[in-house]
Amino acid sequence: MKFNGTHYRSIWFDQKVNHVKIIDQRWLPHQFKIVSLLSLKDFEVAIRDMWVRGAPLIGATAAYGVAVQMQQDPSDNSLEKTWGKLHSTRPTAINLKWALDRCKSTLLPLPECDRALIAMELAHEICNEDVEINRSIGSHGLEIIKKIAAKKKDNEPVRILTHCNAGWLATVDWGTATSPMYHAFNAGINIHVWVDETRPRNQGALTSWELASHGISHQYIVDNAGGHLMQHNLVDLVITGTDRTTSEGDVCNKIGTYLKALAANDNSIPFYVALPSPTIDWTISDGISEIPIEERSEDEVIQIIGKTDKGNLEAVQVTPDGTMVGNPAFDVTPSRLVTGLITERGVSEASKEGLANMFPELTKG
Amino acid sequence: MKFNGTHYRSIWFDQKVNHVKIIDQRWLPHQFKIVSLLSLKDFEVAIRDMWVRGAPLIGATAAYGVAVQMQQDPSDNSLEKTWGKLHSTRPTAINLKWALDRCKSTLLPLPECDRALIAMELAHEICNEDVEINRSIGSHGLEIIKKIAAKKKDNEPVRILTHCNAGWLATVDWGTATSPMYHAFNAGINIHVWVDETRPRNQGALTSWELASHGISHQYIVDNAGGHLMQHNLVDLVITGTDRTTSEGDVCNKIGTYLKALAANDNSIPFYVALPSPTIDWTISDGISEIPIEERSEDEVIQIIGKTDKGNLEAVQVTPDGTMVGNPAFDVTPSRLVTGLITERGVSEASKEGLANMFPELTKG
Repeated sequence: MKFNGTHYRSIWFDQKVNHVKIIDQRWLPHQFKIVSLLSLKDFEVAIRDMWVRGAPLIGATAAYGVAVQMQQDPSDNSLEKTWGKLHSTRPTAINLKWALDRCKSTLLPLPECDRALIAMELAHEICNEDVEINRSIGSHGLEIIKKIAAKKKDNEPVRILTHCNAGWLATVDWGTATSPMYHAFNAGINIHVWVDETRPRNQGALTSWELASHGISHQYIVDNAGGHLMQHNLVDLVITGTDRTTSEGDVCNKIGTYLKALAANDNSIPFYVALPSPTIDWTISDGISEIPIEERSEDEVIQIIGKTDKGNLEAVQVTPDGTMVGNPAFDVTPSRLVTGLITERGVSEASKEGLANMFPELTKG
Repeated sequence: MKFNGTHYRSIWFDQKVNHVKIIDQRWLPHQFKIVSLLSLKDFEVAIRDMWVRGAPLIGATAAYGVAVQMQQDPSDNSLEKTWGKLHSTRPTAINLKWALDRCKSTLLPLPECDRALIAMELAHEICNEDVEINRSIGSHGLEIIKKIAAKKKDNEPVRILTHCNAGWLATVDWGTATSPMYHAFNAGINIHVWVDETRPRNQGALTSWELASHGISHQYIVDNAGGHLMQHNLVDLVITGTDRTTSEGDVCNKIGTYLKALAANDNSIPFYVALPSPTIDWTISDGISEIPIEERSEDEVIQIIGKTDKGNLEAVQVTPDGTMVGNPAFDVTPSRLVTGLITERGVSEASKEGLANMFPELTKG
């Protein structure tokens, strides 16, 4: 999407200089830096140290990493080692393994002399596929927003609340939850986004940066505020992303999503979840009992990073010395609280039947 | 309650040195500082600049301020001026005006020569009354905790979630929501407290400091985490404070309380609110439509204050430059989500009938 009037993806191949560039997200939302990734080592560092983040973007970055290494050494041995090095950067990321396996299975049967070229084409393809999925999600979500906009008087804004950053920075472009917002804005619909801060990692700051960069009206709020806004008729719908959705439509997403779903339900406000179908886990049905929730580092809660008066980034400790902390990273929103799942094929009911009808070829049994 | 093994109130008259002392709360939870308030000016500054905070404590501080000034000049004119100066420090605080009015109406009929002594006695009395109310709240809340503890096997802890700081730092001693916790701990019941961070002002850090100082097991969590903990059977009950309760039992409290009440309700977990009866507003019934919610400064959301590596307190900016912010300070939890109101007279149903039965002499109509 746009920054300073120019359209960017989160990763791209710059044909002028013949190499891959990314937005180095470590400095966002405070500084916008573009860096070039020139060697396999660069790609490893960029993924491991979270210069790039978000499952789809990590997969795309890994694919480019393979392509760059194939230019250096297209041997079987090199391909195997590259798979291993990139896979170890963030071993729990599903999309990373998926992208690396796809590269390997495509390249291995090819003669070595063809591998560099095909690997690069494949990386482009993986990026373009991600963009296409997110564009589709956006166009289906746009219809939901259009219907709400049609009921507004005097071009009043459609007020959308979102949690975390399911934005273009976490994908190659468009984002998932944000894609309907960008589509609506680009279609000239008046929207206003309530951006949840999303402690502990404050991904709301990234969402705010994205929306501001594209020119979309929004306000940043603490995670406590959404319920009050809904009670006072200041929210028309909620759209979030998801890390994993069960075959029955339970949604695992950033911690706190469940609380917003409860508030939306209590105030009869539609609660939608935007997801690419690969994030549906067809092997499980009950999200609360079956999805293990990662307990992350205490430091994420204890310290907050921000910009000082002097413009430096610095971490400050917000808790008393020695405080014990709990830090579950995700929660599960039961399907009964989800109005609909916005997928690349359309909007599905959050239920076994809804998902099975939308993806019959993927449904088991 | 205790700090480093010594029992403290948040304000007290030190007979050895013959003056009033407070805990300067600006430095908590990072530093514990006691300061003396010697002149009316000191009291004005302490209230205005939030060296002390919390409605009951502000009222008590003002009463001591009047007493100290009566030692300097007990004239009618001085009394009037003192009322005005102290009242203007935080004009919206109900308890401040209540305490000042009580001082004025008690002192004005007295001969000037008696005023200093009586004013000091009155300030002590106001403090002691607050302590007594909170002690009572605690003893009634203790019964609730005892019943849950009785069902636990192997002395497993009663897990209590709380939001904001309704602790002894906001009152003279015991606190409101925390009073049942201190009573339970002092009675030897095994408890563990989940402390909500309570963005934007992170009062959870004060609650953590209080609990740690008194030796009570607890964990600090982001405001997003409570729902997940409740889904996974890690919370036995919720106790919060309140700033204002309607005649029908709707509860206005720190922003985010409503979200926790929704989650408690969704998981069949009891949700109690601790309150001294003076915070019941008998003139209104529907909290959501009748209680105006203060929109506070954007800076509270944009900046977070914490301790740097070097031990200094510093504010860092967490949002992108220029981000618009929404900052509603309170929300309303409808009575249907409240299991009971823990008052100084006992535990009342959160309803018109419940409150009327508990406080028949205060009920209108």
